[in-house]
Amino acid sequence: MTGGSDFLQLDGSRVRRGERTTWLAARLRNAIADGTLPVGARLPATRVLAVELGFSRGTVSEAYRRLADEGLIEARAGAGSTVAARPGGPPPAVARAEPSRGITTPTGSPVEPAGGTDRAAVIDLAAGLPDLASFPRAAWLRAERAVLATASARQLGYGPPQGVPELREQLAAWLGRSRGVVATPDRIVITSGVSGALSLLAQVLRDRGVDAVALEDPGAEGNRTVLGQWLPRLPPVPVDEHGLDTAVLSRSGAGAVLVTPAHQYPTGVVLSPARRRSLLAWAASRDGLVIEDDYDAEYRYDRAPVRAVQPLSPQTVAYTASVSKTLAPGLRLGWLVPPDHLRAPLVRLRWASDLGSPVLPQLTLARLLAEGVLERHLRAMRTRHRARRDAVVSALRRWLPDCPVLGVAAGLHVLVLLPNGQDDAEIAARARAHGVLVRPLSRHRIAPGRPGLVVNYAGHHPERLDAAVGVLARVIDRSRRRPAAPRAAPRRPPPP
Amino acid sequence: MTGGSDFLQLDGSRVRRGERTTWLAARLRNAIADGTLPVGARLPATRVLAVELGFSRGTVSEAYRRLADEGLIEARAGAGSTVAARPGGPPPAVARAEPSRGITTPTGSPVEPAGGTDRAAVIDLAAGLPDLASFPRAAWLRAERAVLATASARQLGYGPPQGVPELREQLAAWLGRSRGVVATPDRIVITSGVSGALSLLAQVLRDRGVDAVALEDPGAEGNRTVLGQWLPRLPPVPVDEHGLDTAVLSRSGAGAVLVTPAHQYPTGVVLSPARRRSLLAWAASRDGLVIEDDYDAEYRYDRAPVRAVQPLSPQTVAYTASVSKTLAPGLRLGWLVPPDHLRAPLVRLRWASDLGSPVLPQLTLARLLAEGVLERHLRAMRTRHRARRDAVVSALRRWLPDCPVLGVAAGLHVLVLLPNGQDDAEIAARARAHGVLVRPLSRHRIAPGRPGLVVNYAGHHPERLDAAVGVLARVIDRSRRRPAAPRAAPRRPPPP
Repeated sequence: MTGGSDFLQLDGSRVRRGERTTWLAARLRNAIADGTLPVGARLPATRVLAVELGFSRGTVSEAYRRLADEGLIEARAGAGSTVAARPGGPPPAVARAEPSRGITTPTGSPVEPAGGTDRAAVIDLAAGLPDLASFPRAAWLRAERAVLATASARQLGYGPPQGVPELREQLAAWLGRSRGVVATPDRIVITSGVSGALSLLAQVLRDRGVDAVALEDPGAEGNRTVLGQWLPRLPPVPVDEHGLDTAVLSRSGAGAVLVTPAHQYPTGVVLSPARRRSLLAWAASRDGLVIEDDYDAEYRYDRAPVRAVQPLSPQTVAYTASVSKTLAPGLRLGWLVPPDHLRAPLVRLRWASDLGSPVLPQLTLARLLAEGVLERHLRAMRTRHRARRDAVVSALRRWLPDCPVLGVAAGLHVLVLLPNGQDDAEIAARARAHGVLVRPLSRHRIAPGRPGLVVNYAGHHPERLDAAVGVLARVIDRSRRRPAAPRAAPRRPPPP
Repeated sequence: MTGGSDFLQLDGSRVRRGERTTWLAARLRNAIADGTLPVGARLPATRVLAVELGFSRGTVSEAYRRLADEGLIEARAGAGSTVAARPGGPPPAVARAEPSRGITTPTGSPVEPAGGTDRAAVIDLAAGLPDLASFPRAAWLRAERAVLATASARQLGYGPPQGVPELREQLAAWLGRSRGVVATPDRIVITSGVSGALSLLAQVLRDRGVDAVALEDPGAEGNRTVLGQWLPRLPPVPVDEHGLDTAVLSRSGAGAVLVTPAHQYPTGVVLSPARRRSLLAWAASRDGLVIEDDYDAEYRYDRAPVRAVQPLSPQTVAYTASVSKTLAPGLRLGWLVPPDHLRAPLVRLRWASDLGSPVLPQLTLARLLAEGVLERHLRAMRTRHRARRDAVVSALRRWLPDCPVLGVAAGLHVLVLLPNGQDDAEIAARARAHGVLVRPLSRHRIAPGRPGLVVNYAGHHPERLDAAVGVLARVIDRSRRRPAAPRAAPRRPPPP
C-alpha cells in the first residue's frame, strides 16, 4: 500500500519526493503541538510508517531525527520514539526552510466601501477572493437542512454573542489540527470575518489606552482602513525578506501590531524564526499585543505549512481568520482567539454592537466542519487553485519575463514587481480601461516603495488568466516606452 | 361573496362588527399614504365595496366620511370618491381612537450579554420572542435553495455594506405597504437587527457631537444598555397614557430620542396625535433626531394599526425594525431608514465595523418577501399569537383579578401592574425559583415607579400560560402577606 496511514490520517501520496521529510516533520510537529500526540505518546516504527506512506525508511527516519533535534521526540534504543515535549519556547524549525519569496494572497484586504471594482470589467484580478464558482452550494444547503431539521426553537432566539457553542467546539478542534492554534471552545469568539475581529480588537485596545497599532508596510489596505476608523495612529513597519522588521517595531511606540506571519500580505514573505522570537520578545517587554491575521493559511502548494505564531504565546497573540478565503466572504464568518484577559471586553463589545453573528450560518458551518465536508472542499480548492497558480505564473513568465514574481508558493494571489520609476496606479488604471482590474502595490503601501501589481488569480480559468496577463504586459510595455517614464534598467531589482 | 375584495386585497372577514369602520379607514389611509392610491385615484363605490367585503353599506360610507373629514378623499356628487391628498402635516386621526392602554410586546429588549435567562426553567416569560416553534423552516430552506440555485458567484463575495439591493427593493415596497414608511431602496440600510441599527446611530450621533439620547421611561432595558455603550448620557423621559412626555424631552438637552410610538415598550401606550406633533416640533426646533423603534408593528389584534411616525417627517426620523419578532432574532436581520444626511456615515461605519451583513440570509429574506411568504407567515402568526394573548389575559383575570393588565391589544406581551410597595424584582426572583421566568418592570425603569411584571406570552401554549400565571399569582399573593410588604389598597391604581 502506498500514500496513506491511519496514523494521524497521513496522506503523503501527493507530496513530491524532495519534500517528504519536511512534510512529515511538519505533520508530526503539528500533531504534537495540538495535543493529538500528547507527551509520552509512542510514534510508529519508522519501518512501518514508511511502508504505509510509500516513503523510503530513510525519509521517515530523517523526519524523526529533525523532531528529536528540536527536542520534541525522544528515541530510545529498542523502545521506539516517544513524544518528549510540546513545542513552545523556540519557534518551529520548519520556518527556517521556507523561501522568503513566499506567496501573497487574496487577503486580508476587504473590498472598498464604495465598491472599488467595476462590475462591467472583463477580468477582475483586484478582489481578494477564492474561486467563488466552487462554493459548495449543495453541501451548504444539505448542512443547513440538517440544522433546520434538528435545531430547537430556542436556538433560533437571541444567540450567545460569543458565538454558538457548536461552532466554537468544531473550530477549537479544527484550528488545533490544521494550524496548531491553542484554543478551547470557551476561548474562541465568533466574528463577522477578520474585519469584524479587527474592529472589535481596535476598540477594546483603544479603551485600554492603546492609541497605535503598528502595521506591516506594505500591508493589506483594507485592514488599514478598518483600523484607521478606530485608532489615531497606525505606524508603518517595513517588511523585508524575513518579514516584519521588528527593530523598527520596537521604536514605533505602538501597543499592538498586526502581522501576517505565515504569509505576509501582499509580499508572501514568511516571518523568519528569528523575527518570530523578537516579535514575541517585543510583546513581552512592553505588554504589547500581537494580532495574527492568518487569512489564507489553507493554501500551501510547494512547501510545508508555516505554523501559526499563536501557539508559541497564546496570552500575547490574538489569532484571527475566517472562511472568506475557503468558502465565501459573503458569509461574514470569522473567529478570534484572543488572550484570556481580552475575551470578556470583546464579547461585551460585540453584544453592544449587534448582539452577535446570525445563528443559522454558524450552525451550518459547524456541521460542515463536523462532517469533514469543509476539509474535503479545501482539498478540491487547493487542487484547483494550484492549477490556476501554475497558469498565472507561466503566463507571467511568458508575457512579463523581466518582472520578478513573489509569493508563488501559497495563497490566492501573486505579487508582480515593476521596475522602479513606473507608476503602478497609472498602469492599473490603464489596465482597467482594457477590461482588467488589478490592484497596484502602492495602494497597500504607507511609505513609498517599489511599484508592483497584486494579481488575484484564484477566481479565473487558466485561459482567462493568460489573456489578462497579456493585457497587463501590453499596458506595462507601453508605459515603459512613454517619454515621461524612462525605461528602467533591465536588470532585476531586489525584492521589496 | 363576503370578506374579500380585490381592491387593495382587503380581507375583512376576521374584523369584528364594531371595528369595521375603523379598520377600513385605516386600510385606505395606509394605501393613500404609501402611494398605492395616488392623488386622483378613484375609490370603488360604497355599494360595491360593501358587497365585496360583506360589510354594510353604512360601514363603508362612514369610513369614506372619516377620510373626507381628514381631507384625504373628496366625494363628488355622481362621480364617486377620489383621493385628494396624502397624509402629511397632521398625524392620522386613527391614533386618536386608540385606547391608551395599548399593548406591550416582546420588544426591543435584547437578551443580556451574560444570558440572563435560566435554560433549566420551566416556562420562560422573560425573553421577548415570537413563537419560535412557528419559524417557517421549510419555507426558509426553499427560499435559500432558490437563492443558491440562482445567485451568481460574485454575489457570494464581499457584499455592499448597505445591504444587498434585492432585499432593499423588497423592503422599500413592504415598509411602504405595511407601515406607510417613506423609503426607496437606496435609502434603506440593512442592519444586524434593531440593536445593530441603534449602535450605528449612537456612534454616528456621538461623532457629530450629540452626547445624549433621551429614552422613554420605562423603556426597553436592552436598548438602554446598547446605547449606554456609546453615549455618556441617556436622560429618561417619563411615559404617561399619551406616550412620551414631550415637555420633559424638551428640557432634557438631548440631541436625539428613542421612541416606540406605535406601541410603547413595555407599557403598550400609543403616542397620541398631539404628542406626535410636539415630538416632531421638538426635532425641528433643535435639529434633533427621532429614532423610531417599530419593533412589533406586525401584531395588532383589536385595533387598527397605528401608523409609523417616519412618513410625517422622513428627514427628522430614523426608522428601524427587524425580523426578530416576525421570524427569529437569531437571523440578526433588521433595517434602518435614516434621514438622508446620516446615510453615508452610517454605511461607512458599518463597513468599518464588519463590512456588512451576511449575504445569503439577506437574499433569502428578499425572496420570502417577493413571494408573499412572509405575509402569509405573518397572518398565521397573528392568529396564533392572538389565541395566546386571549389565553394569558383570561389567565390573568382568573388568577390575578386585582392587577391591571396593560397592552392587551397588540404585540407579544402584556404588562401586569402590581400594587405599589411590592418588590417586582423579588417577585420575579421567587417566580424563577418556581420555574417561571418573568421580567420585572423595574428592570425597564430608570426612575423608580410602580412595580409590575412584563409577561411575554407569545412562545407558549395556552395551558402552559395558565399554569405559569397561576405560579405568578401564588408568588405575588405570598408576597402580599409578608409582613415587610403591607397589602396594598384593593382599588386599581392608575396606569403608569
